[in-house]
Amino acid sequence: MKDICIIGVGLIGGSFARDLRAQLPEATVCGIDASKKHLDEALALGFIDKAGVLEDVAKADLVVLAIPVDVAIHVLPDVLNIIDDDTVVIDMGSTKQAICEVVTNHPKRRNFLACHPIAGTEFSGPSAAITGLYEGKTNIVCEVEKTAFKLQEPVLDLFKNMGMRMRYMDPVSHDKHIAYMSHLSHISAFMLGKTVIDKEKNERDIFDMAGSGFASTVRLAKSNPVTWTSIFKQNRDNVLETLTEYIANLNDFKSLLEAEDYTGVHNEMENTNHIKEILNGIK
Amino acid sequence: MKDICIIGVGLIGGSFARDLRAQLPEATVCGIDASKKHLDEALALGFIDKAGVLEDVAKADLVVLAIPVDVAIHVLPDVLNIIDDDTVVIDMGSTKQAICEVVTNHPKRRNFLACHPIAGTEFSGPSAAITGLYEGKTNIVCEVEKTAFKLQEPVLDLFKNMGMRMRYMDPVSHDKHIAYMSHLSHISAFMLGKTVIDKEKNERDIFDMAGSGFASTVRLAKSNPVTWTSIFKQNRDNVLETLTEYIANLNDFKSLLEAEDYTGVHNEMENTNHIKEILNGIK
Repeated sequence: MKDICIIGVGLIGGSFARDLRAQLPEATVCGIDASKKHLDEALALGFIDKAGVLEDVAKADLVVLAIPVDVAIHVLPDVLNIIDDDTVVIDMGSTKQAICEVVTNHPKRRNFLACHPIAGTEFSGPSAAITGLYEGKTNIVCEVEKTAFKLQEPVLDLFKNMGMRMRYMDPVSHDKHIAYMSHLSHISAFMLGKTVIDKEKNERDIFDMAGSGFASTVRLAKSNPVTWTSIFKQNRDNVLETLTEYIANLNDFKSLLEAEDYTGVHNEMENTNHIKEILNGIK
Repeated sequence: MKDICIIGVGLIGGSFARDLRAQLPEATVCGIDASKKHLDEALALGFIDKAGVLEDVAKADLVVLAIPVDVAIHVLPDVLNIIDDDTVVIDMGSTKQAICEVVTNHPKRRNFLACHPIAGTEFSGPSAAITGLYEGKTNIVCEVEKTAFKLQEPVLDLFKNMGMRMRYMDPVSHDKHIAYMSHLSHISAFMLGKTVIDKEKNERDIFDMAGSGFASTVRLAKSNPVTWTSIFKQNRDNVLETLTEYIANLNDFKSLLEAEDYTGVHNEMENTNHIKEILNGIK
């Protein structure tokens, strides 16, 4: 893969470009972004070689979509329309059902590989892009059987060489489970942040009381609202299901506390404690 | 301070003992704990010199209470009853109103300094005790004016030498604000863990999908249920208030998503985003 085109040069696309350069030092990486400012930043940071145009997409060996998921579903068919038979297009979005559906009948479906590398930080934009973001992380690949084997192989090798492990899953299952494993955490953190800020807005000194526990639990409330609005929109039904269950669990806990049932309160926590073992090894 | 007695040799008391040794290398540190196993561990780890008895408490220069808050309110008056006029007793609990109230009229009230060092990890027991836990953290001191000046001074110096900054606050305000800044985060994390475990209990492979975001948000669900039941018990009214507001905010977010009001969803997140600046510098 010599010519690579990254559409969206923020945290996800930019970090991918950084690792890509280590793997494929000879490749030319061009960047496309709706934000001129972001493109200039990416150029200045050196993880892309040039700003790309339509022609670069058409002749690329690899096109990477790293843009909000509700934009990606419109851009992907357009990209597939103009590429060569030998070009592989991947996306990096946190939802997989909508994007797989939108190209189901596209004549170039075999040129597309649906990916969700489960990696990120709470920061965004080109300056947030870091080397090694994908190392040791999981990449969920959906509908792998629909991608031409000779096109999927070099991409999967590239991910593996970046230190990722592959997991294969259908898009419906992906979206259902990722709502629990990722999307709910974001809402939980955003609303925790809101609750505390609303209460303490006139008492900034109080934030001196914030310890590492609060900082950790609320960390995801720093995430990009544009990225996350589009994810919640595309995964609305699954997210609503998780949110309903989460609120029910919080109400149950509240009832135990209201009833002064401290054995119940204790048991609720003890039964969840084995998350220790489950999460072992996740950084 | 030559003779120091630490009651409760877990994460909080043990980490304090470790830092204490660096500050006061000549001091003899004895440990008291309801668990023989924990005492043996603390001795083996070397952060206490010996297992203490009642007599050690009576003749200590400094007695540190680092036990669950609902036990501490019973132990503190007993300790004050037997100590010398020159002994200072501190507690390290996450609630301050109940413990301050229980000794309001105690003849040895001036020998007690109510502290809440805001430091910890999600682990517990002597093996979780670490050096440097308190460095760069905040210690909330309540009713400092009720402690004899000559007794409070060496203790505050000790905390400062461990790298802590002091904040002075009345116990009612402490408990109200700490419910937002710490206690709510724990419930949020425990119930997030419960929601995900309940859903995915038969599909352990799914936890491969957990990324650093989930791990961070759910981290506090590893915390000790005994410690936290006693905190929620003592701070029940404040915790219920924060929990009610948190649930209301989650329900509002859910309503926006149900109504497909994505501008509203976006604004909720954007308005919370400035938690970035607020949390700057908290590790």
